[in-house]
Amino acid sequence: MSVHLQPAPAKSPEPATGVRRVTVLGATGSVGRSTAAVLDERRDRFRVAALVAGSDIDGVARLARQLAPEFVAVADPSQGAALRAALEGTGVASGAGAAAVNDAVALSCDVVVGAISGAAGLRPTHAAMQAGRVMALANKECLVCAGAAFMRDAVARGVPVLPVDSEHNALFQALGAEPADRVERMTLTASGGPFRDWAADAMAGITPAQALAHPTWAMGPKISIDSATLMNKGLELIEAMHLFGLPPDRLDVLVHPQSVIHGLVTFTDGSVTAGMASPDMRIPIGHCLGLPERLDLSTPRLDLARIGSLTFGAPDLERFPALRLAQEAMAAGGGAAAVLNAANEVAVAAFLAGRIGFCAIPTLIARVCETMAGVAAPSSIDDALEIDAEARARATAALAAGRAG
Amino acid sequence: MSVHLQPAPAKSPEPATGVRRVTVLGATGSVGRSTAAVLDERRDRFRVAALVAGSDIDGVARLARQLAPEFVAVADPSQGAALRAALEGTGVASGAGAAAVNDAVALSCDVVVGAISGAAGLRPTHAAMQAGRVMALANKECLVCAGAAFMRDAVARGVPVLPVDSEHNALFQALGAEPADRVERMTLTASGGPFRDWAADAMAGITPAQALAHPTWAMGPKISIDSATLMNKGLELIEAMHLFGLPPDRLDVLVHPQSVIHGLVTFTDGSVTAGMASPDMRIPIGHCLGLPERLDLSTPRLDLARIGSLTFGAPDLERFPALRLAQEAMAAGGGAAAVLNAANEVAVAAFLAGRIGFCAIPTLIARVCETMAGVAAPSSIDDALEIDAEARARATAALAAGRAG
Repeated sequence: MSVHLQPAPAKSPEPATGVRRVTVLGATGSVGRSTAAVLDERRDRFRVAALVAGSDIDGVARLARQLAPEFVAVADPSQGAALRAALEGTGVASGAGAAAVNDAVALSCDVVVGAISGAAGLRPTHAAMQAGRVMALANKECLVCAGAAFMRDAVARGVPVLPVDSEHNALFQALGAEPADRVERMTLTASGGPFRDWAADAMAGITPAQALAHPTWAMGPKISIDSATLMNKGLELIEAMHLFGLPPDRLDVLVHPQSVIHGLVTFTDGSVTAGMASPDMRIPIGHCLGLPERLDLSTPRLDLARIGSLTFGAPDLERFPALRLAQEAMAAGGGAAAVLNAANEVAVAAFLAGRIGFCAIPTLIARVCETMAGVAAPSSIDDALEIDAEARARATAALAAGRAG
Repeated sequence: MSVHLQPAPAKSPEPATGVRRVTVLGATGSVGRSTAAVLDERRDRFRVAALVAGSDIDGVARLARQLAPEFVAVADPSQGAALRAALEGTGVASGAGAAAVNDAVALSCDVVVGAISGAAGLRPTHAAMQAGRVMALANKECLVCAGAAFMRDAVARGVPVLPVDSEHNALFQALGAEPADRVERMTLTASGGPFRDWAADAMAGITPAQALAHPTWAMGPKISIDSATLMNKGLELIEAMHLFGLPPDRLDVLVHPQSVIHGLVTFTDGSVTAGMASPDMRIPIGHCLGLPERLDLSTPRLDLARIGSLTFGAPDLERFPALRLAQEAMAAGGGAAAVLNAANEVAVAAFLAGRIGFCAIPTLIARVCETMAGVAAPSSIDDALEIDAEARARATAALAAGRAG
């Protein structure tokens, strides 16, 4: 924080800076598309180096026509010809498969948006970070499954890791330049999901369709279920622990249904700063892409007088045991969070497929976490992927044995 | 803002720094007593150079026994003997009158808390700033009546001006190290005062006793009435304009009865940061005294889950015309804010004395502002005091002529 306030001139144009080259990993997902919207609005400030997608050829081709990247890669090795056909006439080079993704990551750029979802994001995101790019990180697994190793490598490489998630970005903005040891507490807010006020005995009957109807954010199915169980907030606690270097007992969750305040930092003198914004992912993405300078963006502005009221409450760990499991994994340390995350992915997929009930999700996770208690912290991405595979196998076996619910 | 996040160790002790010498101007007022509480709690970090009061001998002697300053001064020249008697046995040197106040200001120190209230604070606060001390500023008049000159001199002298007012301190913390030209809007919150929800036709009958009952803060009578008319928030807008170097059209007011969020900064990318705290002046004072390092303080922590709900609304400029008058003075520039402030002081004193009604306060202010429209900006503290005296004279004359209501 500056301690010298000087009168500034009236609002001046954005400082002229060089055009920044951006690569987007996970271009066709929700964060990827919001990133594209920012890049499209501010073509004067950004050029796209590479777009990387999984297998959504139509989606990535549409973005490529809009943003004119130098290179497009899809992870699915069988889609090379389809991708070339979809890009015909654009002059954009393309490739498919792991080698093409590596080529995309190796392409020179200033910032990488790491928005591949799931464990599939671990290797390419880590590779991009190791290549020395500023990392605007949206992939949760890099921090949840391999946080200590990922941050250790980022520090060693001198790579800034900028949080794209709305909660972590809010905490990052609220923290400013203050050192972590002056932070007494960081609080992540949770909308509480669609079952915030449901009676405990009604929750066993929750259907996937009910759980997919998130009150605030339009998101993919996996993260919508995680929001409904509050596991999403638990995973975010673990991310925050690694991003900000705080011990578990200085991180907590506050239920805030309006999702206007995304994160709060309480300092050792009693001051609190909060990060807020309309629920639009272009805001945290634009913040990361612009750093260290704020962009002008046409994002929706917050109007508290119109919103009228913000409410808050403590999370109910009895009705939402997934959050408690995540807190326990965070406190346990080691590889516990990687186990938790993998078991959760299997459990959520089983719930979405109608194989288990809503309340069986945490039961399955707890069972897998118990059987793998004491697993050591992964010292590399490969280590984390091994723990992930083992936990998935155990969760799948437990499901097959019908022991989940 | 740092763009490099590094894991920090678990909470470490406060960094060891030298003991800081503090002088308090206005030691016996509300801000002065809260300052004393911080200095008393953190005796390991602070020594008191001088305490300056107006004429409250008992109050300043009590603080002197608690804080062991090197020197105590009272402005009232007739109180020298009484002050010496009250300090007997303490070994604390003392003096009375303007020369003694100057001696106190000249005493070597690191930070001055400028908490003398009213126009009486202009000269000593300016003198302390000119002496090169870091200025933790609570006196409103330095910025309202002579803001351009005061900030010009502070910049020329290289003196940081740190805001002690809860709203401005919140904005200062929410702003962090961002340049003012990336700020789209700063919003100060107002509790709305005790008449927030009163019908317009009931307001003419408001009594001083009703107006003195502020819902959130325990303050002196003048500032309590200013809170009831919303003039206080208007004066704070003018202060913020000078402190943060923002044009009038980028400053606004939001009614927020719980007084939990004190200020909000909206940036050009749509991000919003907010400064919050329990309503305890030790928090912003401690923040200013500790800078650039956060202190550990035993101030009350904010508990949003317990508070439950925060509400917001636009201010009603029809029922609270004093706020509109302040906005007009801010937009008019020049010496208009000094005129507004002086007329307000006379009008509030007349209301408290039962000479005029509540709704006559803004009427009197408007009349004086009209007759002095176009007055040039004061280029010095002396200039500001001349404008102040002229506006007081006109307000007093208008009162005597019975033209106020």
